[in-house]
Amino acid sequence: MSPNLPIIRIGMLGCGVVGSEVARLLAQDQEELSARADAELILKKIAVRDLSLVRPGVDPALLTTDALSIVTDPEIDLIVEVMGGIDNARELILTAMQNGKSIVTANKALLARDGAALYTAADKADVDLYYEAAVGGAIPILRPLRESLVGDHVTRIMGIVNGTTNFILTKMDEEGRPFAEVLAEAQILGYAEADPTADIEGFDAAAKAAILAGLAFHTSVTDADVYREGITGITAKDVEVAKSMNRVIKLLAIAELTPDDQISVRVHPAMIPRTHPLAAVRNAYNAVFVEAESAGELMFYGRGAGGAPTASAILGDVVEVARHIASGAVGYGESDYADRDIATISQVKTQYLIRLFVADKPGVLAGIANAFSSEDVSIATVRQSGLGADAELIVVTHRASEAALDATVAKLSQMDMVRTVESVIRVEGADL
Amino acid sequence: MSPNLPIIRIGMLGCGVVGSEVARLLAQDQEELSARADAELILKKIAVRDLSLVRPGVDPALLTTDALSIVTDPEIDLIVEVMGGIDNARELILTAMQNGKSIVTANKALLARDGAALYTAADKADVDLYYEAAVGGAIPILRPLRESLVGDHVTRIMGIVNGTTNFILTKMDEEGRPFAEVLAEAQILGYAEADPTADIEGFDAAAKAAILAGLAFHTSVTDADVYREGITGITAKDVEVAKSMNRVIKLLAIAELTPDDQISVRVHPAMIPRTHPLAAVRNAYNAVFVEAESAGELMFYGRGAGGAPTASAILGDVVEVARHIASGAVGYGESDYADRDIATISQVKTQYLIRLFVADKPGVLAGIANAFSSEDVSIATVRQSGLGADAELIVVTHRASEAALDATVAKLSQMDMVRTVESVIRVEGADL
Repeated sequence: MSPNLPIIRIGMLGCGVVGSEVARLLAQDQEELSARADAELILKKIAVRDLSLVRPGVDPALLTTDALSIVTDPEIDLIVEVMGGIDNARELILTAMQNGKSIVTANKALLARDGAALYTAADKADVDLYYEAAVGGAIPILRPLRESLVGDHVTRIMGIVNGTTNFILTKMDEEGRPFAEVLAEAQILGYAEADPTADIEGFDAAAKAAILAGLAFHTSVTDADVYREGITGITAKDVEVAKSMNRVIKLLAIAELTPDDQISVRVHPAMIPRTHPLAAVRNAYNAVFVEAESAGELMFYGRGAGGAPTASAILGDVVEVARHIASGAVGYGESDYADRDIATISQVKTQYLIRLFVADKPGVLAGIANAFSSEDVSIATVRQSGLGADAELIVVTHRASEAALDATVAKLSQMDMVRTVESVIRVEGADL
Repeated sequence: MSPNLPIIRIGMLGCGVVGSEVARLLAQDQEELSARADAELILKKIAVRDLSLVRPGVDPALLTTDALSIVTDPEIDLIVEVMGGIDNARELILTAMQNGKSIVTANKALLARDGAALYTAADKADVDLYYEAAVGGAIPILRPLRESLVGDHVTRIMGIVNGTTNFILTKMDEEGRPFAEVLAEAQILGYAEADPTADIEGFDAAAKAAILAGLAFHTSVTDADVYREGITGITAKDVEVAKSMNRVIKLLAIAELTPDDQISVRVHPAMIPRTHPLAAVRNAYNAVFVEAESAGELMFYGRGAGGAPTASAILGDVVEVARHIASGAVGYGESDYADRDIATISQVKTQYLIRLFVADKPGVLAGIANAFSSEDVSIATVRQSGLGADAELIVVTHRASEAALDATVAKLSQMDMVRTVESVIRVEGADL
């Protein structure tokens, strides 16, 4: 190690799967990382709740239960926050910033909830706030958005940002199995939690959608702004219908500019063409598809979770932030200058596929078509199959507002000739 | 514009399709770009060969034919080089660096030829050398490699980095048409040049492979170090055979660590599984697939060429470099500390598919199998089809060295029972 390098001392909050991997790699690759940072990187302290846990590869002498002593330690320059949770993490991060420390965090829930407050505090304290690991695990996506595309205008982002639901939907698609069965398998394999709500109901994806939308559209977006539907309503039959149309169902996090220069941010299942790059994203992988004015279509693909992939993203941020500290610079601040309005879901326009069981008698098709046209929803295609009690209609609409579609479905549900409206699924990625 | 922002003056060398777009966007988005750069960006001068050409959106008052006056202008801080070519561009860039100017360039040929000299000059002059647009057009791939993955270890890169050849191979795959016919169509559509040699013989891809390999493996790599085969030998029959094995043929730029800690850098067609993320990269799109120790598999996808996409990448670099100049910092320097040896192609191990016409008589299979085993090449699968003069064998090997495979093919070619060795194609992306 060159004796001339400045020393950057790091404090870490939390030492679970990700934190242990970060600590291990900081020790193992210390010389190489320091060379790239133009600064000698030293992990000084790690705050944990339980000192007695065994953490392989982590020096026990670094551990303390006193997190506050780390974020106020005048020797420490940079805080890596991997403890998770909201309130406690926020307080510690804000205190660290007030004490002049830059932050690297993977805490998507906190950023989606209180990002604006954190950005303001970072700006005021003239410190960095980096969080590449918060969305898409190892995938470099936030820095490309913040930095590489800084000279372009993003118009739309569509992401597969939750590995659990993508694993489930992939199995349903490739093996024709029902949701509940695949969820149970995912739990056994460790791809889904014992309580899978945050994943399968789209909460995790919604937090990431808020972060992506904020960066892409220079507007403050919180998880509360994100319309959210999970995948629990997706049946084997829905998957089969998508397949028959050369489509696949994915849980998408979408952030897009509307024609009125508002932004729409939403998480819901959608049918996309099998030729779309996102369709090839299988199992627990993540990908973010970006459309920008000059760059055109871009996609970033990789592992969305896991100790080592997340640690890779965190270390990339640590080296960058350490370079800034060593050279007295600060990275790109957050920008919310565009301050766009967020469209409500009822204003959003997209295509829909509606599947319904109907009475098998003359005049049904005309009656159904009338229900759509009375709400100004234009039909692209209709497919009828089955006879008698199994008579089924699959209607694909042209682009229509969610409000008009809802009104249509309400009307359909009250018609005598309609037995049930089986499912309504959005169609994205190219007109059907 | 805030009066407190420092002013960064830009000089541009060249004003063709890309340069015009950069000039147009610098004017159109001047305020926004300046805000992101924390500096007021002003395009001061543009060097061109012919002042009389019409360049829509470019202020003619900026044009000069005196390139040297730009790179020595004490007021200019940052040079954008989009003139192309080798000798003249190198001299101007080196002179600019000696005059303290940072460089943003899209010149892949120059970087692949003389990258080391440019990096050394940039380091010595304490200026930035950024070139995101040189590989993968709009796709942010070089900065993620240099910066986001700085805390990780790349083990392998496989890229589709030439849009022309990917367009041709996509049409051959999807429409079953022969190479020459699709090439002619690509020329009509403007996807291929009148002289398509640089694309179809892999020279363009080889330059990009050298740049990617150097960044990924911290070793100086030039285009002369890259083994290169183009796609002119790929027949409709090869594409059909790949299809029958659920594979697709792509022209890949590969850079990988060998088990001896050397690096192999090569460009050649290869059969990859249809489930591989690169298989979904269609038409003129590019993608770079990266394998890293902690991050696992990553892929970066987008448009590899074109005025607007390339301009997007250049402006991203311009803003970053301007931030550095304004804050007195410098970005990541080049690193060749690993200084690994480059393996010759004969040492490289991969799988091969060999298709040959053979005499249709007893003992042929045993004879062919002996030819492989005598060179220590192990056979994974054999498929025989056709009768009489059409008797065909398709042999897929286990991983073998190129040297052993060459010796096997030489031996096969001399056997009486072998009519012709029709084709030899490498198999990548997962064992067949």
